[in-house]
Amino acid sequence: MLVNRKCNILIVGLGLIGGSYAKGLKKLGFHVSAIARRQETIDYAIDNNIIDEGCIDINEKIIGEADIVVFALYPHVFKEWINANQRFFKPGAIITDVTGVKSCVVYDIQDMLRDDVEFIAAHPMAGKEVYGVENADEKIFYGANYIIVPTDKNTDEAIEICREIALLLQFGRISTLSPAEHDEMIGFVSQLTHCIAITLMNCSDNELLVNYVGDSFRDLTRIARINENMWSELFLLNKESLLREMDKFLDEFKSLRDELASDDAEGMKEKMRISTARRALFDK
Amino acid sequence: MLVNRKCNILIVGLGLIGGSYAKGLKKLGFHVSAIARRQETIDYAIDNNIIDEGCIDINEKIIGEADIVVFALYPHVFKEWINANQRFFKPGAIITDVTGVKSCVVYDIQDMLRDDVEFIAAHPMAGKEVYGVENADEKIFYGANYIIVPTDKNTDEAIEICREIALLLQFGRISTLSPAEHDEMIGFVSQLTHCIAITLMNCSDNELLVNYVGDSFRDLTRIARINENMWSELFLLNKESLLREMDKFLDEFKSLRDELASDDAEGMKEKMRISTARRALFDK
Repeated sequence: MLVNRKCNILIVGLGLIGGSYAKGLKKLGFHVSAIARRQETIDYAIDNNIIDEGCIDINEKIIGEADIVVFALYPHVFKEWINANQRFFKPGAIITDVTGVKSCVVYDIQDMLRDDVEFIAAHPMAGKEVYGVENADEKIFYGANYIIVPTDKNTDEAIEICREIALLLQFGRISTLSPAEHDEMIGFVSQLTHCIAITLMNCSDNELLVNYVGDSFRDLTRIARINENMWSELFLLNKESLLREMDKFLDEFKSLRDELASDDAEGMKEKMRISTARRALFDK
Repeated sequence: MLVNRKCNILIVGLGLIGGSYAKGLKKLGFHVSAIARRQETIDYAIDNNIIDEGCIDINEKIIGEADIVVFALYPHVFKEWINANQRFFKPGAIITDVTGVKSCVVYDIQDMLRDDVEFIAAHPMAGKEVYGVENADEKIFYGANYIIVPTDKNTDEAIEICREIALLLQFGRISTLSPAEHDEMIGFVSQLTHCIAITLMNCSDNELLVNYVGDSFRDLTRIARINENMWSELFLLNKESLLREMDKFLDEFKSLRDELASDDAEGMKEKMRISTARRALFDK
């Protein structure tokens, strides 16, 4: 293992995901520090054994001691932070992140970063509809997918460190995609599904809906409880990919609609056979 | 209680839902009989304490002894069955069902039915992506929604019997809607969501998808494993309502798409705030 228990790990941004990384890694015996916006967050995390130490300002000592730094910030804040504070990183430090979009972040950060530290992007495909370190829970990672997003600038060693972090946190499948492949995939599996959930809830203002829904409607709209600032930023930063996926979905949906309108039972059944066969692969 | 343990209950159609009714009601002490298509189904249900007795043919004695008959068949089979065999019903019997569409079924059956028996329609909003009596599980009803769908022809007594069955099976909220209201509501909360799940799985033939999805994509496509014969029939029998709901969804989805295309962050955020507030009502 390249990652060993002597590594100091710094988490920047102590929300749900940052807090869950911290909690899981501290339980494994790592020294975990954190930088957050609010002192209450740091106090809560120390009191609840989520981190060893933390601060709300730019603490040169904490940053300078970290061997691995995990960024769990909004994309635009992430870039600003690196630009303003990268001079404090320990030489040889590995920087990684949990950002939901990559092309618009990875190249800029690698371009601006000092030569003696390395940024390797990653995306843990896990979350909850609640926010903040108070809801931190390392179990959300168990068995979840983890995508490493390297560029030509990344070393095999950094990719391996990223993989080891995912293994330590008990992620399930660990895959590697390029930034462009990642953003296209995430436009489909994550952003499009959030667009659908938002839209479903915008279709009806019936306050009694809860009396009539089954599990299907509940499941399709769970993610309609959404952080509007984060997700509108993520959508706009992946605009071209997401628009492509939305348009592909619109075409497919209209095709099913037109089959129904023209009483084309066989056409609908064929789509259902395809969806059944493809979805069955998830449950193997 | 109008429904007491001396009532004989007959289930016609012993699939997942019929089997789950049978299992739950037999556990409560009712005498439960069943009519199924295949002898294996009857044998399995008897061997596993799901029913007391059953047959695959039209058994005058079993039908004639039933105080309450629950139909769990495809809509078109349901109507044919009533037409062919209603002469065997016990005078005073209460007939109910679990059919997913109502307008096209309820009035026809009430019109053709003998005057000395009463049909009261109901829709248990519960299910699973598996089929058959082997997967029967009365727990799928616990806390689920149950919709009673009376017409002017129904008596208060029959409505109350229906409500008592739902309470005995531990459904959660019990509501009453007219057939037209039911079909509009189901077009939205159930059929539209299935159309979306089918469409999502038809958008990509990437066999590695399972490596990249998070819980959101899993949740939105769980119901994409679908019985194509039953659901294409349900869609076509509720065609006008479902088309209206699909078109409403298309308009809302396109509106979100156009906001993204024109960098209208505030417009997207407003939709997210609405979806968050409305969905929060489900989790109170």
